[in-house]
Amino acid sequence: MAERIPSGTRDFLPDEMRELRAMTDRLRTVFEGAGYGEVYTPALEFERTFQGDLPAGPAYRLFDEHGNVLVLRADMTVPIARVAATRYASEPPPLRFSYFAHAYRRVRPQRGQSREFLQAGVELIGAPAPAGTAEVLNVLCDALDAAGLENFRVGLGDVMLYPALLRSHGIDEQSGERILALLAKGDFVGVERELAGAELSDADAELLLRVPRIRGGSEVLDGLTGPLLEAGMGMQDVLELLSPQTAARVIFDFGLVRSIGYYTGAVFQVYDPAYGTPLGSGGRYDELLGRFGRPLPAVGFALNVERLHIALTGEERGRG
Amino acid sequence: MAERIPSGTRDFLPDEMRELRAMTDRLRTVFEGAGYGEVYTPALEFERTFQGDLPAGPAYRLFDEHGNVLVLRADMTVPIARVAATRYASEPPPLRFSYFAHAYRRVRPQRGQSREFLQAGVELIGAPAPAGTAEVLNVLCDALDAAGLENFRVGLGDVMLYPALLRSHGIDEQSGERILALLAKGDFVGVERELAGAELSDADAELLLRVPRIRGGSEVLDGLTGPLLEAGMGMQDVLELLSPQTAARVIFDFGLVRSIGYYTGAVFQVYDPAYGTPLGSGGRYDELLGRFGRPLPAVGFALNVERLHIALTGEERGRG
Repeated sequence: MAERIPSGTRDFLPDEMRELRAMTDRLRTVFEGAGYGEVYTPALEFERTFQGDLPAGPAYRLFDEHGNVLVLRADMTVPIARVAATRYASEPPPLRFSYFAHAYRRVRPQRGQSREFLQAGVELIGAPAPAGTAEVLNVLCDALDAAGLENFRVGLGDVMLYPALLRSHGIDEQSGERILALLAKGDFVGVERELAGAELSDADAELLLRVPRIRGGSEVLDGLTGPLLEAGMGMQDVLELLSPQTAARVIFDFGLVRSIGYYTGAVFQVYDPAYGTPLGSGGRYDELLGRFGRPLPAVGFALNVERLHIALTGEERGRG
Repeated sequence: MAERIPSGTRDFLPDEMRELRAMTDRLRTVFEGAGYGEVYTPALEFERTFQGDLPAGPAYRLFDEHGNVLVLRADMTVPIARVAATRYASEPPPLRFSYFAHAYRRVRPQRGQSREFLQAGVELIGAPAPAGTAEVLNVLCDALDAAGLENFRVGLGDVMLYPALLRSHGIDEQSGERILALLAKGDFVGVERELAGAELSDADAELLLRVPRIRGGSEVLDGLTGPLLEAGMGMQDVLELLSPQTAARVIFDFGLVRSIGYYTGAVFQVYDPAYGTPLGSGGRYDELLGRFGRPLPAVGFALNVERLHIALTGEERGRG
């Protein structure tokens, strides 16, 4: 029998919808309470709005009646950057926005990827690191607390850290890009192969393999030197501005690399033992707003609402 | 300067979003209270799911990675019929569903049409006329009351009425289709021209021009004869099952014709003096479920959330 709906899409029936609504209502209460007013932008945007900044996987393209190329939004960060720069062009920063919106990505068959998924997130525009980053991390953890998730952790890294380390060891840009792509997939064997091709001392090669595996509490920030020092100090500065509850959730992760083109500094990912892959992610995108004519530093996160719901249900089941 | 977003789309900023959320929460409370559990279906469906039943204007078509043709849903009625027939195949009727979802339609330039719009609605599946029709009209009016709309009216017609009248006067099918299309656009001059080409007595031509203009209270149902009698009796049966508050809102409208291919009997439209075009519409689609393998009579409505909000704001402004 032919499939009824496209792979990577789902029907949501009333029992699940009721739980999802209750969960998003709790998230919205935290977002609004922290001053992040909800916005909604069109699902269809001009492709030129996104430029090179479409997240993983090509987007859906279609044509309007004038022959313009439209895309189904692949995330809400770029549209909100557009809104902030154009609809709030003379509003003094910082600007705070939240959203609950579906995003769309092309899927590779048989990978269990979602073609359509509901995201909940915030964007803080005009607040530089470290204070802006810390504020958004606090909102993230408060929202997850309010949703009822108990065991989550937030991985915090810096997309500048590892590229700086590669450059300082004379790895050329092309090889560096390949290494970063391998790291993004968690392919350490591939990284090792790529590093073996570079002219490195054993100690340097060992360091370049070891650093992206560094994960832990604030102790991993101690004693950093060379190109690691700056990123480590940045993370330390963020840590000092976190609420105690948020700080207790953070795991520093030197292996977090650029998953979306627009990230420029701190990046984070939300994990929960009740779900195998990240429930959400975020980071700083200090260069994106400039593209829309209002250069402002910015930071935000997006939660995958369906994954969050599964993790929540899994935790509840675990507590029996 | 180039347009920032496609014509027929909009950004919704926090003040408006807060009002829209409050309004949809009130609608959802009425829907859930009446037993209509919320469902969400994918925005992307196989084109074959919709067959000929895409509402006005062609839909957005795109291809998946297997070369299947996908469309952006143009309404939620067809997807919910699919869900009811496949996911609730052995559930005893009636089935009650509600939704809050964006729909997408291609626009003709410079017409002020929406390319994307949020719909709120219900579908009642397995409840024949007149009881099912009356239940849905009661839910519709209760929801609009809960939203705070004061001056709305619901036009109630029957898509079988005028075609039966045309047939009984020997109008051939092709000419009949043209007349119905003209009526749907409100083009009475065109209808008159088309009727002049048929071989009709003056009295018959006058009748065929007069009937689609009949609008009013239950008095318009009195003294109907011939092909009007059956549709009139159907409307009378519905009227008797309406709550007094709903009955007070209803205007019988013999000019309501088939706007979407799947309608089979009663159709309705929501009007408010504070907005120039219908805020929503609905009707019976007793043949649609059979296409998905579970023949059941059905009826539903969809409200355009943005238009409803504008009407509400207009009324409030009018009350000062």
